[in-house]
Amino acid sequence: MVSQESSPIPVFLPRVAERARFAAEKMQKVDCVETERLLVGLNCFEPGQSQKIHEHAGADKFYLILSGRAKVVVGDEARDVGAGDLVFAPAGVVHGVETAYERTIMLVGMTRDT
Amino acid sequence: MVSQESSPIPVFLPRVAERARFAAEKMQKVDCVETERLLVGLNCFEPGQSQKIHEHAGADKFYLILSGRAKVVVGDEARDVGAGDLVFAPAGVVHGVETAYERTIMLVGMTRDT
Repeated sequence: MVSQESSPIPVFLPRVAERARFAAEKMQKVDCVETERLLVGLNCFEPGQSQKIHEHAGADKFYLILSGRAKVVVGDEARDVGAGDLVFAPAGVVHGVETAYERTIMLVGMTRDT
Repeated sequence: MVSQESSPIPVFLPRVAERARFAAEKMQKVDCVETERLLVGLNCFEPGQSQKIHEHAGADKFYLILSGRAKVVVGDEARDVGAGDLVFAPAGVVHGVETAYERTIMLVGMTRDT
């Protein structure tokens, strides 16, 4: 642990995908590291779940697919992605997950809105 | 591709670990996505290679180990890490890779120095 501001930030997060949580109602977000500069977390989808198209005006974001398979949208492009694929959504560009084909875990890294 | 500033930024980077490059002399860095806010890249180690202890005064950084096994240092703590482990190095905290035990690829995400 490293103290930063009021709450301790975890430094070593072994097998981070094991922090994934799933719910029948909708995709789940699990925050792993959160600072004033950076957010690292998991986006967790059951088959058929989605993340609606949205954008972050002042923040860059990327997804690294850890497991599963899904259709991801960035700008006007939609692509099927799977484990080991990286997707980058620059600030101001719409992005989202159209559907997960199976149970899918994505690591998400995002700068904070400036 | 999404145009940002002068150079196009890649949006879909399939099987990002395949971009890894290795060299006998020292660990290699491969930049994958670079903006004014965020750097995403690979750190690539042959067995026995290291990354010297350093810090970023105004930037948060994390490593996600994609493959291999290494001893990583953050602050005063050293730990053996392997595929799927996440390591977070907050701004101002020293960190580095003491040694790679085998060929090792880490995905690195880092905010830009502010």
